[in-house]
Amino acid sequence: MGHFINDNFMLQNQAARILYHGYAKELPIIDYHCHISPKEIAEDKRYNNITEVWLGGDHYKWRAIRANGVEERYITGNADPKEKFMKWAETVPYLLGNPLYHWTHLELKRYFGIDDLLSPETAEKIWNKCNEMLSSGEFSARGLIIKSNVETICTTDDPTDTLEFHKAIKEDKSFPVKVLPTFRPDKALNINNDGFRDYIASLEKTANISISSVSDLKRALENRISYFHGNGCRISDHSFEYTVFTDTDEETVDKILKKALNGETVTRTEEEQYRSYLMVFLGREYAKKGWAMQLHLNAIRNLNTRMFGLIGPDTGYDAIGDTHQAKGLAGFLNALEKTGELPKTILYSLNPYDNEVLLAVMGCFQDGTVPGKIQLGSAWWFNDHKDGMRAQMKALASMGLLRRFVGMLTDSRSFLSYTRHEYFRRILCNLIGEWAEAGEVPMDMNLLGSMVREICYYNAKNYFGF
Amino acid sequence: MGHFINDNFMLQNQAARILYHGYAKELPIIDYHCHISPKEIAEDKRYNNITEVWLGGDHYKWRAIRANGVEERYITGNADPKEKFMKWAETVPYLLGNPLYHWTHLELKRYFGIDDLLSPETAEKIWNKCNEMLSSGEFSARGLIIKSNVETICTTDDPTDTLEFHKAIKEDKSFPVKVLPTFRPDKALNINNDGFRDYIASLEKTANISISSVSDLKRALENRISYFHGNGCRISDHSFEYTVFTDTDEETVDKILKKALNGETVTRTEEEQYRSYLMVFLGREYAKKGWAMQLHLNAIRNLNTRMFGLIGPDTGYDAIGDTHQAKGLAGFLNALEKTGELPKTILYSLNPYDNEVLLAVMGCFQDGTVPGKIQLGSAWWFNDHKDGMRAQMKALASMGLLRRFVGMLTDSRSFLSYTRHEYFRRILCNLIGEWAEAGEVPMDMNLLGSMVREICYYNAKNYFGF
Amino acid sequence: MGHFINDNFMLQNQAARILYHGYAKELPIIDYHCHISPKEIAEDKRYNNITEVWLGGDHYKWRAIRANGVEERYITGNADPKEKFMKWAETVPYLLGNPLYHWTHLELKRYFGIDDLLSPETAEKIWNKCNEMLSSGEFSARGLIIKSNVETICTTDDPTDTLEFHKAIKEDKSFPVKVLPTFRPDKALNINNDGFRDYIASLEKTANISISSVSDLKRALENRISYFHGNGCRISDHSFEYTVFTDTDEETVDKILKKALNGETVTRTEEEQYRSYLMVFLGREYAKKGWAMQLHLNAIRNLNTRMFGLIGPDTGYDAIGDTHQAKGLAGFLNALEKTGELPKTILYSLNPYDNEVLLAVMGCFQDGTVPGKIQLGSAWWFNDHKDGMRAQMKALASMGLLRRFVGMLTDSRSFLSYTRHEYFRRILCNLIGEWAEAGEVPMDMNLLGSMVREICYYNAKNYFGF
Repeated sequence: MGHFINDNFMLQNQAARILYHGYAKELPIIDYHCHISPKEIAEDKRYNNITEVWLGGDHYKWRAIRANGVEERYITGNADPKEKFMKWAETVPYLLGNPLYHWTHLELKRYFGIDDLLSPETAEKIWNKCNEMLSSGEFSARGLIIKSNVETICTTDDPTDTLEFHKAIKEDKSFPVKVLPTFRPDKALNINNDGFRDYIASLEKTANISISSVSDLKRALENRISYFHGNGCRISDHSFEYTVFTDTDEETVDKILKKALNGETVTRTEEEQYRSYLMVFLGREYAKKGWAMQLHLNAIRNLNTRMFGLIGPDTGYDAIGDTHQAKGLAGFLNALEKTGELPKTILYSLNPYDNEVLLAVMGCFQDGTVPGKIQLGSAWWFNDHKDGMRAQMKALASMGLLRRFVGMLTDSRSFLSYTRHEYFRRILCNLIGEWAEAGEVPMDMNLLGSMVREICYYNAKNYFGF
Repeated sequence: MGHFINDNFMLQNQAARILYHGYAKELPIIDYHCHISPKEIAEDKRYNNITEVWLGGDHYKWRAIRANGVEERYITGNADPKEKFMKWAETVPYLLGNPLYHWTHLELKRYFGIDDLLSPETAEKIWNKCNEMLSSGEFSARGLIIKSNVETICTTDDPTDTLEFHKAIKEDKSFPVKVLPTFRPDKALNINNDGFRDYIASLEKTANISISSVSDLKRALENRISYFHGNGCRISDHSFEYTVFTDTDEETVDKILKKALNGETVTRTEEEQYRSYLMVFLGREYAKKGWAMQLHLNAIRNLNTRMFGLIGPDTGYDAIGDTHQAKGLAGFLNALEKTGELPKTILYSLNPYDNEVLLAVMGCFQDGTVPGKIQLGSAWWFNDHKDGMRAQMKALASMGLLRRFVGMLTDSRSFLSYTRHEYFRRILCNLIGEWAEAGEVPMDMNLLGSMVREICYYNAKNYFGF
Repeated sequence: MGHFINDNFMLQNQAARILYHGYAKELPIIDYHCHISPKEIAEDKRYNNITEVWLGGDHYKWRAIRANGVEERYITGNADPKEKFMKWAETVPYLLGNPLYHWTHLELKRYFGIDDLLSPETAEKIWNKCNEMLSSGEFSARGLIIKSNVETICTTDDPTDTLEFHKAIKEDKSFPVKVLPTFRPDKALNINNDGFRDYIASLEKTANISISSVSDLKRALENRISYFHGNGCRISDHSFEYTVFTDTDEETVDKILKKALNGETVTRTEEEQYRSYLMVFLGREYAKKGWAMQLHLNAIRNLNTRMFGLIGPDTGYDAIGDTHQAKGLAGFLNALEKTGELPKTILYSLNPYDNEVLLAVMGCFQDGTVPGKIQLGSAWWFNDHKDGMRAQMKALASMGLLRRFVGMLTDSRSFLSYTRHEYFRRILCNLIGEWAEAGEVPMDMNLLGSMVREICYYNAKNYFGF
């Protein structure tokens, strides 16, 4: 028995092995959506220990440790880094079958050369080895990116961001990786959120435009879009429980905005009108700039109010929604398409059973201008595992053009997550290899190898045009 | 490496091969639901080129070509037939993993004896060969049907149809295939559609009954049902986003109909009352005649208003809905069952995740009068691919009686689509063979072969009683 | 070709065989949720014939026989037992691919040593053999339990139950199996049901507490919970189409209860308030006692009104619902969690496409106090088959901790259903073995064997603490 992470990990047929080793493996990474900190790249952050870089902000792991019956003190609390690492090591053997089991061992192997399986028995040794290596220069934020063969990174940024770190990174010619911002104006759209007025105030300041009407707001957003564009941004990002399109007009929406700015309550219907109107505006702006618009759907957030009070958002208390998507999404895309102003669009739903609905809807808005113009995004978050990825790829293949797929992204907050691209590539090659061995696609390695290379790298390169 | 389409295409285990070649292959086809034109059969239409017969009305292919970034001019526009064929040939290599890739090569092989894979490199040769063959007499509408070993075809027809072409076909003793009408009264049910009043006027004329009340309308529909029955019709067909049952009465519904006939607006609730009442009436009529009632659910249509304006319906702008089905469907079936007037029924949902709901609901209305009285229809439209068919068959097997399944239909507008029955049979045999090899069903070829033959042919023959 | 039920039935790889035969097979059964009758155990019921013990109360089989076109007379009607058996024997060959095919032959093999496949040809012989064996003492209710290596059984009981049979069983030292009650207060929660007032009256009597307010009702339920606890109960059970949480208060709910007790109509909103309030009360009580709370969701019941009138509930006329679950469930769990009073909880949905939603929601309420505190229950009812179990296990593995899963239960009304644990164990071992053979988990039989043993037995033992 060889090592768990070996050359043929996840490559379960001969064709898969040829495809991965011959076509996929060496390609650079375009990580077009993630949540890592541009500041940490600009400052080339270094890590004191494996707990900091590995467990520090990873709510996937936190959820697993909690489910394993471990006290919060050892997760997000004030236990010391080694104790936290030991609790994680206790949990790992309970994760058989979970993607965390694979990610963990891929990361230990690729970054630290470790073949041991993490468990209480091996934890001490692994703790020491990782920390020793982290203390060397190679394991800084930039070091990890370079080591991972990353070509382009798109971070996720608020319109009010100054992009100072993106600029600093660009100016530093010693670092060859493109680190580009993504425009994520959720706060400008969530008109019913507590912080909405403060947010508008901060947008006023950044855009240097006084905002008292929808027209002002649009100018301010346009201003920020141009600024982001000038700093290399080519993608926007939105997260909604569901997409809507309500036909409305500027006058109506102007009144709604004014209510909100006066601190009055905005109804659900008004919220939907405001959102519809502004999203159509934004979609048109993105189309003008040639950007791709990402829509992340069916996430429900902050469900545990006690823990939200204690440790805030993005700590492992979000879930998959089961809200209807078909008609609202179709209505919104149609509102943009009917005037020829629908931008390139990438759709993600957190509910894996929305794949087919999204695929069927998006097929109605492919307009022949760009290959794969509307994309079904890679299996997202809770679906980012072998079965979820296969389901996304098989549905896309059955109902659309898998070969035009722009492929993987990490969506991660950690510099050790680039191995998820390797994981994706292995799973992709395994699926296509399976089809080839079964006679469902021709056993023609030139043809299949081209397809693999396109999905792993070239499609994203052509589609986004960074 | 042999040809892509070879004897064992999709037959991935030994038992599957025995089942397909020994039991399924030679059986005639009963294509009990499709959209081909009886006129073209009556007139024995001939085709000028492969684009006309293959790409002319096929919105599955159109969607794929659009998604591949090709201008509409080359799809439904005025580009010349060869240019259109070339754009399709460019798209095919991007369809690896899509059922179109399989259908395309099955059709090229079975009808034209072509083993080459369609691509820009082979397109010229294939274009020439197909067109040469099409110019021979064998490749007329009837020639293609005969070549495909088809025994019975059920077209889809409006109640106002005169069925003149069905009659003509029946009278022509030189053509041995039964071509029967299916009663699809959607236009009489869509009380809120623009053309409703015109439609009722045309129904009045055909039935020779003046319609000013629900009672008149029922008589007119009854008249047409009898007429269809006399012309061999044994199946009805309905398409709804969702099924409803609202308890109502003739008086209420009469008022609703009168409103609509006066050009007044009918509310959503009224529409549901009208539909419920009329569907119960129709269901009872179908039961009296021994017909099977087909319900097609969860399609949402004409989502792209710009393209709808340009090229109309059925052009590739429909999608899968995610509307709830369970309770409305159960209510409707129960309304018929409680008086013992539920006809044989076939349920299809366009949302693949409705399979289990439909199976569970339909199991509550199996009344012991007919084996497999309520059927889960074959994987429909966007689900008509290997994974979709397997999901339908596996769900049916797990929750009902797969061996009582009436099997495949083409649902097609093309005379080259009969190979979809072959495709279905191969996938069916492959699944049952897989079970046999895994020890999940007995490795008894008499038993399994009987099951295969029943699903491929005999169940439909017995169930519909044409 | 060996027997259909052989040593390696469902064990389709080498690792699976090692895991099943080396680790799973000999473990005792903890059947923590079922519907068998404690009276029949107390009285050690004997059976006159195989029809009585096998077909008598099994609505899974009834549905299959109906779907096969058999008259109700031979199912729940007055046909004689042998005729009924013969109709079942006719149906079995039509069940290829259905779990009933497996269960049937497993039960014939394990209890009666029969290797023949049931069919009209073998029916007479099997009828005779089974009945002969049933006439021996070993085949009483207790005999079947002992033969099945059952350690603990949890029945399902109304709060008004005296638990006299549970007590009698406990006192009889000759029977070593724990038979414990489960607290299922559905009737106290269904405020809109016809029998609600009568039910409250019967609760008053059992608890010896007069009930005219919510406060009284709570005391009465508390009284019964204590009584059940004293009789070994450690689990509650609830069935809802959906879970809700509506913030309300005792005063409001008191008025709602009073309306109901006066025979007035309670609105849907009031029903939801009543249910929310009472469920939070009950959840807190369960937490105090250390019980596990089971929630069974998305079943819709008694859909066929004609048959309900003839033969009542639980006769095969229930189905899977498609109601939204995410937010209501999260709201309810949060209402308990925010004060630290959420008990151990097991979630089941009848809709297989709720697995991921339940897993994502439950992950937000794992609080680190108990490993696997919130559980995704085993594939329930219509999902209790190979594909359903694999879907549940794979989703749980991908999104949570499969190794902390408390495993299988029969949910059955029959003493011949314990082989479903064997069936589950084989399917579990097969899945884990598949992963091992594919290199997705380490090929380490100590590690994987521990996981198997935990899921089959030890997790339930530790989790419930009977």
